[in-house]
Amino acid sequence: MNKKMVAFFVGRVLRIEAVLLLVPALVSLIYMEKSGLVIVACAVATFVTGYLLSRKHPANMSFYTREGIMAVALSWIFMSIFGAIPLWVSAAHVGFTDALFETISGFTTTGASILTEVESLPKGILFWRSFTHWVGGMGILVFVLAILPEAAGDSIYLMRAESPGPSVGKLVPKVKTTAKILYQIYIAITFAEIIVLILTGMSVYEASVISFGTVGTGGFAIRNNGCFSYTPLQQTVITIFMIICGANFNVYFLMVAKKWKDALKSEEVLSYLGIYAVATIAVAINIRNVFGSFGEGLRHSFFNVASVMTTTGFAISDFDKWPGFSRIMLLVVMFIGGCAGSTAGGMKVSRIVIGFKTIRKELEHFVHPRSVKILKFEGKPIEHAVLRGINVYFLTYTTIFAASILLVALDGKDFTTTITSVIATFNNIGPGLDMVGPCGNFSEFSIFAKYVLMFDMLAGRLELFPMLLLFLPMTYKPQK
Amino acid sequence: MNKKMVAFFVGRVLRIEAVLLLVPALVSLIYMEKSGLVIVACAVATFVTGYLLSRKHPANMSFYTREGIMAVALSWIFMSIFGAIPLWVSAAHVGFTDALFETISGFTTTGASILTEVESLPKGILFWRSFTHWVGGMGILVFVLAILPEAAGDSIYLMRAESPGPSVGKLVPKVKTTAKILYQIYIAITFAEIIVLILTGMSVYEASVISFGTVGTGGFAIRNNGCFSYTPLQQTVITIFMIICGANFNVYFLMVAKKWKDALKSEEVLSYLGIYAVATIAVAINIRNVFGSFGEGLRHSFFNVASVMTTTGFAISDFDKWPGFSRIMLLVVMFIGGCAGSTAGGMKVSRIVIGFKTIRKELEHFVHPRSVKILKFEGKPIEHAVLRGINVYFLTYTTIFAASILLVALDGKDFTTTITSVIATFNNIGPGLDMVGPCGNFSEFSIFAKYVLMFDMLAGRLELFPMLLLFLPMTYKPQK
Repeated sequence: MNKKMVAFFVGRVLRIEAVLLLVPALVSLIYMEKSGLVIVACAVATFVTGYLLSRKHPANMSFYTREGIMAVALSWIFMSIFGAIPLWVSAAHVGFTDALFETISGFTTTGASILTEVESLPKGILFWRSFTHWVGGMGILVFVLAILPEAAGDSIYLMRAESPGPSVGKLVPKVKTTAKILYQIYIAITFAEIIVLILTGMSVYEASVISFGTVGTGGFAIRNNGCFSYTPLQQTVITIFMIICGANFNVYFLMVAKKWKDALKSEEVLSYLGIYAVATIAVAINIRNVFGSFGEGLRHSFFNVASVMTTTGFAISDFDKWPGFSRIMLLVVMFIGGCAGSTAGGMKVSRIVIGFKTIRKELEHFVHPRSVKILKFEGKPIEHAVLRGINVYFLTYTTIFAASILLVALDGKDFTTTITSVIATFNNIGPGLDMVGPCGNFSEFSIFAKYVLMFDMLAGRLELFPMLLLFLPMTYKPQK
Repeated sequence: MNKKMVAFFVGRVLRIEAVLLLVPALVSLIYMEKSGLVIVACAVATFVTGYLLSRKHPANMSFYTREGIMAVALSWIFMSIFGAIPLWVSAAHVGFTDALFETISGFTTTGASILTEVESLPKGILFWRSFTHWVGGMGILVFVLAILPEAAGDSIYLMRAESPGPSVGKLVPKVKTTAKILYQIYIAITFAEIIVLILTGMSVYEASVISFGTVGTGGFAIRNNGCFSYTPLQQTVITIFMIICGANFNVYFLMVAKKWKDALKSEEVLSYLGIYAVATIAVAINIRNVFGSFGEGLRHSFFNVASVMTTTGFAISDFDKWPGFSRIMLLVVMFIGGCAGSTAGGMKVSRIVIGFKTIRKELEHFVHPRSVKILKFEGKPIEHAVLRGINVYFLTYTTIFAASILLVALDGKDFTTTITSVIATFNNIGPGLDMVGPCGNFSEFSIFAKYVLMFDMLAGRLELFPMLLLFLPMTYKPQK
């Protein structure tokens, strides 16, 4: 293990975080808040640490999968530790564990909160909280790739560890160029949402914060009642942007490259929209009596299904109070999640589609043992390595899921709370059901359970393996 | 599809069922119960139907996977329909759906019950109810194989569709001989338990019925309070036999062949005992305050963990009232289930062990990309086809599981009831939590939900694919 290179990498990430911290500091300045000083002090401390770690290039620059995975896992952890300082110092009743939970929840675009009351917090602090969604959303490391030329040669390892979904490596012939284009798309969508929300009458501050939460598919709100009190028009705008940001960014990449045909027949995005449409209508029918009519049910279903499927986690009504079928349907789309190559969490639509195709192929093989069929996805044959990766992903996912539920269950909370708290964090959604429903929060868990859920948020965001390897002795053993 | 051959096969199975029905008829005669006439009438009807279907050999005897799968699925369904008649006619308040549910629950060795009160039922009827566990347990079709010489050539297809676990085909060089030996072992264990239970002071009738439930890993009890009122000695005897019957019968096969070394180092059985021991102790620690001491907690944990892990489903205490950690631990071992090649349900220990090995191999590949490692199980390399089969199994399992929960959720029952009712039936356990806990039952579900759960019981028992293929159009399309 080239430890110096890993430290160098983490240092570079912290230097970038220090610069990003100046944005909320500026917001604090505008609103003349004292907490701005805390943010500036935190930025300085972050920069100094980052500088010390990455002062000079290590003599040995070799950087393989193992180093890539460690660098990614440790970057996210250190980023979160430093990023937690402003909230910890500024909010009177928030301990360090809670501040770290909130910040990991931010960077991983989960949106699960331990805060029972947010409106009294300084605007700069709330801005930083939502800004972490935006920074985490596209993966700060894609950013790093674009400005860290030294790593470019081996950066495919980082992409593999970092990007959501099974096949992103494929779309990246030149990582640096791709990262820049993706980031431009990301920024463009963010500005588009901010502008549209301002046009609907939202303040610049609130439009920005909500857009960070939408585009990063995070879901931190800045009102105690979430998105309940926005106008139907504003809620519709947010819904459309949630759907946009849960789709595979490869499609927008193709659109920028004017490959409209390829963009419009993306198998993953069409499946994603299909699943969303079916779930929305099924829930709307099921909740029509809760809201008096199918139309009103559809409005609530349209928003909340998009919110949980894209793993954003905003809510415009307390879906924990909905009938059993709708609650289970929401859980099902929580597991599915958004598309690969998006900012969304969950298992990803492409994995689900490929999983279904695998089942169908096996069933056909039972019926017609001599038939030979090749599995295809997006018009291309699926390589064996991709299939194997998906299978191992499902197995690992299930294992971490079961172990987390067992550990969280030590808290003795009720069945629904225990299970959905893991579902909501591991899939980077935010709210679950019961105690952690849209009107609840995560504050009542023990410190131990909170650390388990933090692990789940990071594991879910980093496609499982980096966080797992960080804690396994095999990672530190030399190659035999 | 060779429909005539499938019908011939189903007919043979019904003829055997007719003979088996004479056993409870005899019990009714001993106790001078009128319901014995119903059982005899049912036996006659079953025999006549079976005779008409299998009167003469079809001209075309060809029998491939597709026919094998259909024959298995339809045999279980028709066996259950005819087997449901005695309960339906004899019990005043039991409709046909409920009688069918109870019988499928019996044959699939699930033990989930719709009866709120069992002690008032005729002894012959209760005997038949438990006898279905015993018949279903080892797979009536293994029986059929041993007396249906015509199918022997292709009978490996049946074994594949019928036997629990991923690799039974391997242990069968000559299906017919193997089936006979396995059946002898099965009968010997049953008699051993009956005799030991009689020695503890149980009546012959009760010892037989409880042994059918244990050896078949079924779990129907004949007292309203399940196994709560048996003596600690009797409970211990039942526990030991549950553990014996959840282990891979291949081990007993090896013992009979005097291959003691191979038998004692079975990787699956050792893992099975290891998981059981860890779960039992963890639960005992967690419930020590519920029962006043660790010792008493251990006694309850020893029985109930064995009961749910072997998917038997007997209970000596209401584990639905246990603390959250224990309830979740019970759910985890419910999913794991017993060993392949046993009468138990669940995913099977061998699949779990191979799944873990796959994860470890992938993690090692991340850390040391050049390392080459071959996955082994029971000392032998795992073939690619076996690995693929396990992966497809997990995917299919998850899909059926999610779809079932969604359909059962239409009933609007609470979250825990909805989810654990599917867990308890799909894994062929019996009791779940909350409304379907050890002191509850399945009577309050809608007819629709009951049919979904019946499908789950059959799908779980038949290793998923036969039941799935029965309902898919592709099965009936001619080969291209």
